[in-house]
Amino acid sequence: MSVTAPLGFRAAGVAAGIKSGGSRDLALVVNDGPSRAAAGVFTANRVQAAPVLWSRQVLSGGRLRAVVLNSGGANACTGPEGFQDTHATAEKVAEVLDDSAGEVAVCSTGLIGERLPMDALLSGVETAAGQLSRDGGLAAADAIRTTDTVSKISFKRGSGYMVGGMAKGAGMLAPALATMLCVITTDAEVSAEELDTVLRAATSRTFDRLDTDGCMSTNDTVLLLASGAAEVRPDLAEFEERVTEVCADLARQLLVDAEGASKAIAIEVVGAADEDDAVKVGRAVARSNLLKCAIHGEDPNWGRVLAAVGTTDAEFEPDRLNVAINGIWICRGGAVGDDRSKVDMRPRDVTITIDLSAGPHTATVHTTDLTADYVHENSAYSS
Amino acid sequence: MSVTAPLGFRAAGVAAGIKSGGSRDLALVVNDGPSRAAAGVFTANRVQAAPVLWSRQVLSGGRLRAVVLNSGGANACTGPEGFQDTHATAEKVAEVLDDSAGEVAVCSTGLIGERLPMDALLSGVETAAGQLSRDGGLAAADAIRTTDTVSKISFKRGSGYMVGGMAKGAGMLAPALATMLCVITTDAEVSAEELDTVLRAATSRTFDRLDTDGCMSTNDTVLLLASGAAEVRPDLAEFEERVTEVCADLARQLLVDAEGASKAIAIEVVGAADEDDAVKVGRAVARSNLLKCAIHGEDPNWGRVLAAVGTTDAEFEPDRLNVAINGIWICRGGAVGDDRSKVDMRPRDVTITIDLSAGPHTATVHTTDLTADYVHENSAYSS
Repeated sequence: MSVTAPLGFRAAGVAAGIKSGGSRDLALVVNDGPSRAAAGVFTANRVQAAPVLWSRQVLSGGRLRAVVLNSGGANACTGPEGFQDTHATAEKVAEVLDDSAGEVAVCSTGLIGERLPMDALLSGVETAAGQLSRDGGLAAADAIRTTDTVSKISFKRGSGYMVGGMAKGAGMLAPALATMLCVITTDAEVSAEELDTVLRAATSRTFDRLDTDGCMSTNDTVLLLASGAAEVRPDLAEFEERVTEVCADLARQLLVDAEGASKAIAIEVVGAADEDDAVKVGRAVARSNLLKCAIHGEDPNWGRVLAAVGTTDAEFEPDRLNVAINGIWICRGGAVGDDRSKVDMRPRDVTITIDLSAGPHTATVHTTDLTADYVHENSAYSS
Repeated sequence: MSVTAPLGFRAAGVAAGIKSGGSRDLALVVNDGPSRAAAGVFTANRVQAAPVLWSRQVLSGGRLRAVVLNSGGANACTGPEGFQDTHATAEKVAEVLDDSAGEVAVCSTGLIGERLPMDALLSGVETAAGQLSRDGGLAAADAIRTTDTVSKISFKRGSGYMVGGMAKGAGMLAPALATMLCVITTDAEVSAEELDTVLRAATSRTFDRLDTDGCMSTNDTVLLLASGAAEVRPDLAEFEERVTEVCADLARQLLVDAEGASKAIAIEVVGAADEDDAVKVGRAVARSNLLKCAIHGEDPNWGRVLAAVGTTDAEFEPDRLNVAINGIWICRGGAVGDDRSKVDMRPRDVTITIDLSAGPHTATVHTTDLTADYVHENSAYSS
């Protein structure tokens, strides 16, 4: 299902020979309309890959006919030649679809600093074009994997329309955005401006609150395409809810599959003076290597939580902080609370609740533990 | 030598029974004058241990007769009772020295969130007072170790005076300050105000530029005590240089002994518009888990360097960034530079040079690689 769950979309995923090993590495998603409205959200990193620079420009027109995605190479830090490669890729897609390159987004993921094998990539585009189909969503989701162990797909039904999506991302996940590629489709009738508003709202509360290793990528891209093929003009609040659900579902799949992780940690910040404070505190805690190691060792080390909270400028008094791990309030008033031996650290899911005692606002940030496997994957694999 | 290298200081290090296992865990450093001028720099963490709150207050008077330090417990997040414990410790030192508790600094290091065993600690103070001697500096340095595998001491000779120091710290090292305790002594005649200026300048360019795991402690303390016993009024520029040398030497020892590290990484930022930009970029790169894993795997992954630089708001253009690793400029103009196979990654010391091409300013930040041993030490050891 994935991106082809909504009407009006075809997709394909093929092995173009960009990756060594012969697995799928090129995906094509085509919007057959009648609408081509689209929006995109991109990495906040100032070092941006060529495909990000290109697609950002394309999206300024608010229309997309197609998205071409490759794994096996990020085409980041590749200079003007890398940008020409992205341009040539879009032109090739335009040629096989008999359409304009100015409505073709390009996404790349893989190693930074190497040129893409363009002969393989361009002939892969031709192969993919020949295999485009209404049930190509799964193959497309498979083709964008790098160190992902499984494909990530999702779809939700609205009132008379569908929202579908696929994503990749396993390491380098951090706010604004998680390191990932994501394509979301819908057959509802929604304008480009509305898609933009909805996508920003949905990503800010899902992908933006995922931080597995604090590292921000050069290639993060989330695209939202509307075909209008269901001929339904949705209630925008409901539509935003469905898109947010698809984003949250994909974000959850990214988290569970994060490189080397053995725990999925939800950091719930409550009692914040405002939502920004809650997010700030959640992120600071999510980025504490010491805490992430402790959770890996199944040690409910609330001292490391407080040490991380204390690095922020959020509104709180140190002696009014409360911390629960898996429901046991082991820190009360900034000091020892309930018996830490009552905390069951064995489940894969760990919830850390931090009460700032400063107001009514809340936010949840998701992260993973830090493991020897993470170190191994990221010291052995050049990415 | 250590803190007893300068005239006018006695020290002792004893096993008080705070740590299980019977190793030394309590140190006492006494300034016999004639001067008692002193200054201190403390953690920027808003969650501060009781001894930090106490010693900050004591130092506002600009005078110190003694410093008592314990390992085996941080006395952080221990509430009003923890503060009373610190106060009682200072009173005990005052009693055995027949002096005022208002001129006794207290430093603690170890696990957060547990009360100290006060009976053991107070009788340890008595024992230490009985063992104070002019050659007690080594025993004192030994007593403040936690996961440190070796004692850290240093001394430098000025024109007619000495500067000596000891430090502890192996994990949780991060800017402002590295997680550590440090006591520096001198027999020069320097006022409290001058000591404060010199200490801030020295720490800002040494301990503040050490970031092994991005985690900021609740207990960091650096103290500088002057006895005036050499009866020499130093040239202040030379004195600052000597103090900075002692700090740099101790910082280097902390870095080499950092938990689980196999590489010492110097991140040299050059071509910055100002020094703040250079430090900001150095810290962002020092905090990239992905880069630290790559260096551990001896992979000269400049793409991860650029991805980290791109998260900052420092002045630079992405296509004018140059990166050298161990002297080989493998990234030029934001893209591939010299052959990466020329980089020799085998030495323990790795230098990453980042040229922002934005001005004449420079700074160097020091960090370590991220290893499975780090994960192991910090998931198995509650601290």
